[in-house]
Amino acid sequence: MQRLFLLSVLLLTVAGTKVLAQSTPPSDSVFIRRLFDEALSRGKSYEWLRHLTTRIGPRLSGSEGAAKAVNYTRQLMEQEDFDRVFLQNVMVPHWVRGTREKAYIQIGNQKTEVPIAALGGSVATPKTGIKARVVEVKNFQELRELGRSKVQGKIVFFNRPMDPTKLNTFEAYSGAVDQRGNGATEAAQLGAVGAIVRSMTTRLDDFPHTGAMRYGTGVPLIPAAGISTNGAELLSRMLKTNPELEFFFQQNPETLPDAPSHNVIGELKGTQNPEEILVVGGHLDSWDLGQGAHDDGAGCVQAIEAIRLLKALGYQPRRTLRAVMFMNEENGLKGGMAYADTARSKKEKHLAAIESDRGGFVPRGFGVVGDAAKRAKIIAWQPLLAPYGLHEIGPGGGGADIGPLAQQGTVLLGLIPDSQRYFDYHHAASDTFDAISRRELEMGAASMAAMLYLLDKYGL
Amino acid sequence: MQRLFLLSVLLLTVAGTKVLAQSTPPSDSVFIRRLFDEALSRGKSYEWLRHLTTRIGPRLSGSEGAAKAVNYTRQLMEQEDFDRVFLQNVMVPHWVRGTREKAYIQIGNQKTEVPIAALGGSVATPKTGIKARVVEVKNFQELRELGRSKVQGKIVFFNRPMDPTKLNTFEAYSGAVDQRGNGATEAAQLGAVGAIVRSMTTRLDDFPHTGAMRYGTGVPLIPAAGISTNGAELLSRMLKTNPELEFFFQQNPETLPDAPSHNVIGELKGTQNPEEILVVGGHLDSWDLGQGAHDDGAGCVQAIEAIRLLKALGYQPRRTLRAVMFMNEENGLKGGMAYADTARSKKEKHLAAIESDRGGFVPRGFGVVGDAAKRAKIIAWQPLLAPYGLHEIGPGGGGADIGPLAQQGTVLLGLIPDSQRYFDYHHAASDTFDAISRRELEMGAASMAAMLYLLDKYGL
Repeated sequence: MQRLFLLSVLLLTVAGTKVLAQSTPPSDSVFIRRLFDEALSRGKSYEWLRHLTTRIGPRLSGSEGAAKAVNYTRQLMEQEDFDRVFLQNVMVPHWVRGTREKAYIQIGNQKTEVPIAALGGSVATPKTGIKARVVEVKNFQELRELGRSKVQGKIVFFNRPMDPTKLNTFEAYSGAVDQRGNGATEAAQLGAVGAIVRSMTTRLDDFPHTGAMRYGTGVPLIPAAGISTNGAELLSRMLKTNPELEFFFQQNPETLPDAPSHNVIGELKGTQNPEEILVVGGHLDSWDLGQGAHDDGAGCVQAIEAIRLLKALGYQPRRTLRAVMFMNEENGLKGGMAYADTARSKKEKHLAAIESDRGGFVPRGFGVVGDAAKRAKIIAWQPLLAPYGLHEIGPGGGGADIGPLAQQGTVLLGLIPDSQRYFDYHHAASDTFDAISRRELEMGAASMAAMLYLLDKYGL
Repeated sequence: MQRLFLLSVLLLTVAGTKVLAQSTPPSDSVFIRRLFDEALSRGKSYEWLRHLTTRIGPRLSGSEGAAKAVNYTRQLMEQEDFDRVFLQNVMVPHWVRGTREKAYIQIGNQKTEVPIAALGGSVATPKTGIKARVVEVKNFQELRELGRSKVQGKIVFFNRPMDPTKLNTFEAYSGAVDQRGNGATEAAQLGAVGAIVRSMTTRLDDFPHTGAMRYGTGVPLIPAAGISTNGAELLSRMLKTNPELEFFFQQNPETLPDAPSHNVIGELKGTQNPEEILVVGGHLDSWDLGQGAHDDGAGCVQAIEAIRLLKALGYQPRRTLRAVMFMNEENGLKGGMAYADTARSKKEKHLAAIESDRGGFVPRGFGVVGDAAKRAKIIAWQPLLAPYGLHEIGPGGGGADIGPLAQQGTVLLGLIPDSQRYFDYHHAASDTFDAISRRELEMGAASMAAMLYLLDKYGL
């Protein structure tokens, strides 16, 4: 590799002038081009992700998969000869789905099965399931206006779709996900016996999507499940002609005692300002239905690859670079909080943190959160990144796991891939390795490496 | 629809001012936003494409599928109440693949099967196939340097991969596709008995890709086939340890007499300058291995949808708008040439033509070819389109089918979708409907509608 590097330095011309010696550092644009070349021709992220998703598989906090993923990514960073690889202890929630859920719509003696999945954190139904009449609503306001008399003893069916006209599908998600997070609580307050929530996707298909829900205090814990969008459409249609129909569902998830787990951290030591830390990361846990490919195996392998790319080009970081595999983003954020707590208690100075947690799709930019002057400095790098399709560098973004670092003034950056396909896979059985495009994944990794390079070189 | 339109006009506020009557036309940005809203919430292109790909299927020129596609798209535009829908006669080449190809690598008695597909236009092997030793080359220069003595009686294996570091995969394709187009001719000139060409994709998989090849004049017609990239890698590895190995392949394609076919054209008549024509199109024919989903069913349904979107918003075009389904892009371009010939002989004035033939992926811009002042005018619209991710509006692009219109000074525009995944599917059995993202397809259609609207409103 080193010989290849020297050769390419000798051969490359920068702004028309031959670079004559390795000691002349390449211009930023040349160096960033090399990062993309390396990622696209000798990238490792795709094969790492193949292992993480098809050999290890789903990695819900507390699961065997999560523990294997901790070991695997630790080994990866050791094999890639990071200066230091270490684990950080985290206690995480341990929710298990139990056996496969069952649900059907019943009209008279006719039963029509529909695909559901318990929402993460939900309680079980009674062993024999729940059968009840259904009240369909689009939002909490509508539910409250119905009042206890119309809701009591029924299953509430939350059926407000994600708004398909939002170009940024994360905005559409934000506009609908209250149903999943708080639907059961809102329903239980009016005496409902269960909550069924339309899956968070604009696609019409047969995959129920899971995801975290929470119970309010002082409210009965009623079981909650996601229903596939086709299932939701069917139920809604059948309710129009048969408002008295009954819905049956049966699920037996369980919340076990909190379990020990880990953040996994790999580090390149800074050569000039080692006390200043730059983080690049993703979250290692995933929901249990698919393989956690886009959410967020992609972000994890991209973070490790971002640092590998810099190493592969012989780059000596001025500051300390860390790849962090956060644990438990999906149902607790314990890893992100523990990381920030440790940073604070050890008085570590985190200049910036980059997270990739929006899928392994083609990158379109970075969202930047933090001090205005620092944001402006980062946004001014856009011309260096635009040739790689990274046009959208602006305010907003960040990431859940790095969020807790904001307290110490760390600038937060979120890789922004194209969002059109993300919710086709998010939290569903469809989130598998074969939904990953190798090139798109690699370009995301190179984008993160380029941003890390600029942050390291110029500081904040 | 009309009532809905009126309502939304009444409710919308433009730059803080209420638009008070339908007679006040919406601003460009408001109108373009509505095109995207309509496409993303009530778009029809995806279901049209489902029919075209899964019910009709592959549509190679002269095939039954191509004829059905002519009828289907004609009916579509009639159903959508275009002002005029008509066919244009075109004679097209009629090549048929015959039965499934067979190929294996033989070392001693050990045979290893590999996936191949006859290249479009290739002749058959003898009925019992061809078995010969193999010479692997990366380019024509290398082949010529080997000379007749090393090539005579052998199969030439062209194994130069597409360059993975090109961010625009079409550039990588251009840099490799000479092997497919001219490899057989180059090989035959030195006495080879067959040509095997590495598939045009950066992916490593088991799909052989087909595509057009041509025979030079005065050169023996030797059979040529594409081999999957995994097959190419295997053959190359085996050749390193067993340079004497033999390759067997058997294929029986045939070139039949030219067949009658059609371009399909649907039109909205201009209300102010009907004599000025704006075209939006794709090509209706496809290769025979997949379903022609990305190449180019997507472009066809997007072209029809672009005009439907304008109609759905009650837009009255100043100029005449045409959706054109070109026939025979893949192996002759007869449709594109016939369309331009007719335009010339009828003295039709084509201001601009937009083609979508780079897959139904998320749109990133338009390439513009033509007079500099007109190009500049179009490029100046970029701020209206950037909110939809259409950052890249610049020189270059166009499309094969609309190319022949350049002679009359027509400005040519090519929709530029993200190119990272295109060659995963291009000309292979993997180019199927399930490789299409509904939202990405719809955004491309809305992008074309927006460009068509601006061209119509402001002229060139």
